[in-house]
Amino acid sequence: MINASIITVGDELLIGQVVDTNSSWIAQALLPVGIPLKQRLSVGDSEEAITQALDSCLSDTEVVLMTGGLGPTSDDITKQVLAKYFGGEMVLNKELEKQITELFVEKLKRPLTQRNLEQAVVPNNCEIIPNMLGTAAGMLFRKNNKIIISMPGVPFEMKAMMETHVLPLLKNAFDAYPVLHKTLMVAGIPESNLADMLVDFENNLPVHVKLAYLPNFGLIRLRLTGQNASDEEMNLLFKNLKQAVQQYLIIDEDLSIEAVAAKKLLQHKSTVATAESCTGGYLAQRITAMSGSSAYFNGSLVCYANSVKSDVLHVQKDTIEKNGAVSEAVVLEMLTGVIDIMGVDYGIALSGIMGPTGGTEEKPVGTVWIAAGSKEFRIAKKFTFRYNRQNNIEAAAVQGFLLLLQTIR
Amino acid sequence: MINASIITVGDELLIGQVVDTNSSWIAQALLPVGIPLKQRLSVGDSEEAITQALDSCLSDTEVVLMTGGLGPTSDDITKQVLAKYFGGEMVLNKELEKQITELFVEKLKRPLTQRNLEQAVVPNNCEIIPNMLGTAAGMLFRKNNKIIISMPGVPFEMKAMMETHVLPLLKNAFDAYPVLHKTLMVAGIPESNLADMLVDFENNLPVHVKLAYLPNFGLIRLRLTGQNASDEEMNLLFKNLKQAVQQYLIIDEDLSIEAVAAKKLLQHKSTVATAESCTGGYLAQRITAMSGSSAYFNGSLVCYANSVKSDVLHVQKDTIEKNGAVSEAVVLEMLTGVIDIMGVDYGIALSGIMGPTGGTEEKPVGTVWIAAGSKEFRIAKKFTFRYNRQNNIEAAAVQGFLLLLQTIR
Repeated sequence: MINASIITVGDELLIGQVVDTNSSWIAQALLPVGIPLKQRLSVGDSEEAITQALDSCLSDTEVVLMTGGLGPTSDDITKQVLAKYFGGEMVLNKELEKQITELFVEKLKRPLTQRNLEQAVVPNNCEIIPNMLGTAAGMLFRKNNKIIISMPGVPFEMKAMMETHVLPLLKNAFDAYPVLHKTLMVAGIPESNLADMLVDFENNLPVHVKLAYLPNFGLIRLRLTGQNASDEEMNLLFKNLKQAVQQYLIIDEDLSIEAVAAKKLLQHKSTVATAESCTGGYLAQRITAMSGSSAYFNGSLVCYANSVKSDVLHVQKDTIEKNGAVSEAVVLEMLTGVIDIMGVDYGIALSGIMGPTGGTEEKPVGTVWIAAGSKEFRIAKKFTFRYNRQNNIEAAAVQGFLLLLQTIR
Repeated sequence: MINASIITVGDELLIGQVVDTNSSWIAQALLPVGIPLKQRLSVGDSEEAITQALDSCLSDTEVVLMTGGLGPTSDDITKQVLAKYFGGEMVLNKELEKQITELFVEKLKRPLTQRNLEQAVVPNNCEIIPNMLGTAAGMLFRKNNKIIISMPGVPFEMKAMMETHVLPLLKNAFDAYPVLHKTLMVAGIPESNLADMLVDFENNLPVHVKLAYLPNFGLIRLRLTGQNASDEEMNLLFKNLKQAVQQYLIIDEDLSIEAVAAKKLLQHKSTVATAESCTGGYLAQRITAMSGSSAYFNGSLVCYANSVKSDVLHVQKDTIEKNGAVSEAVVLEMLTGVIDIMGVDYGIALSGIMGPTGGTEEKPVGTVWIAAGSKEFRIAKKFTFRYNRQNNIEAAAVQGFLLLLQTIR
């Protein structure tokens, strides 16, 4: 069995300055290649830490993928540590020097400095993996039939290098068994009840197939993972799983809830807009984070001030005065208003108290009214979330998208 | 010297299904406690992997913080592995049973299942750390004067547990030298030029005080970190640093750029609104993520469709046709429009092409026009970012807030 590990290098990872998104991306990219990831490790820019990480990963896994520490500044030392670790020396690579010069002259159109050219100095005991997008070359070392690959930490450079060179190379190098994953999403049932419901299904799973629960603000993803399972076997098990959770099933794919909504809107050739008070544009931002969202999303009215609710969304001042801004009557008028002014088929409207302040006995922090639907068919529902501000916003967004899904027909 | 390590547990981390944000958060939270993080490790839900990770971290560091694998479902095994690793047994904890029952009856108002109650079965060789927000208790183990703490993987449960219990506990347990941090923010100068400017300042720093550059989309935070330095010494060094970067200084505190804008708006008793095309509500969402933002933020018009730009924001159709939606003329009309309809003093308006599609030769992906200011004084500026979609949105937001700061007077 071939396993991989990831080492991400950089002091910035140890003070929480950046979130390590490279590891997740690489982990996903390795799945179809059939080389399961065994561990992910992040260490600082220190020779001792990098050396220990290499020792640890090489004792356990056959493939070690590294990112980071290849930059031109003095704190970047990965290259030097690798040269030493594998018993090589740093030398000027003429071919790389030419590539870097061309990159600056032709693509970046920036003056080339001595510091940039020093990026062509690399260990003499590695195979160079070209970096089409930057000056830090990838490096491949081999030791005892194991493969160690060092890549730049800049995400888009790393991703291009993985896709063009590293993944094909790994596919060829190892005769790996594919690991198959099948994921679905349910909503409306607590995790523990879902687990009770699936006791028989889990007990009947073959040993090489595992079921994982991934809960997140009212949504639960269920993931089947098969090591060396056939497509047929996985499809059958997934079909059984789908049947078992049928009444709570949202989608039988690994999609975000906003992507599920997007898919359904596109299927129905419909458009949507949001009227957001308490969520402050968070739903709009999640929708527009997806490329292509202009096909079904017209816009959003973030109506934080009550004057904006009445002046722009045409919510009656009287309705706000009588019921308060956090009320069924107000979110229903917000919904009608946003459908009208944005000229869309569907809308989501939210008004609530996200905390930490602003709660009352009658409407405590976490109280959110949400309405969704069209002019013909709409639903309004009250929620009481019990999280902090950020997570109340998150939970409200999830429920907003779920309500929208219930009304698209 | 006391060091910490983090182990995040979960198969989902190894297939890239979730990004590990817990590690970054914990890393940041450890800074002021004065316990530097030495490594971060992610492993799957497997006894062998968790055991190896514990061996590795305990050989290197005095504090091991773990998250994940404490859920009520069968894939979660961290609790059992820890009981065995530290030579204990799983027993029912009566106090925990009571807490979990109360949580369900009083807070969640949901029926309590047998599976939920099994969350009260914990190792008999640990100290329990209460979880106010869920059923998975935290666990503290001690071995050879080292401390191992296991926390739930659900981010808000983990964060609450860290803030209420773990951080104070670590502060008390180790006589760590306090680490003092002083941070300021600059903008408008590349990192390498800033470094050149600060060569003398850095050379004159005492050995126990370090300067870190934390660049992020056009902003650079400069952080002075003093190990066992006095307040007076740090204040003096910080004053010198401020003087050295005076002309680029945005704020001499560790604040987000939207918090700096909020502070200035409050000082001037002014209000703001945003008109967002390409950023899709991201600026509004960042503003409203801050509690109290209703004091200066009225709302946002996310005008993704051109029809919304003209119908709601009153941008002339002619202006869009002549100049295109991504143009100086359009963002200026968007700015005027949003100031009018939202009844605010200041506005930020953005229109651009975030990619990956939609670019042209004349207006490539990453082209963004931003306008900010009041009716009396406004600035419009064109930017060309070269990131992916998500980071182009991030970079545009930063520049939007910076432009706003330039116009508030």
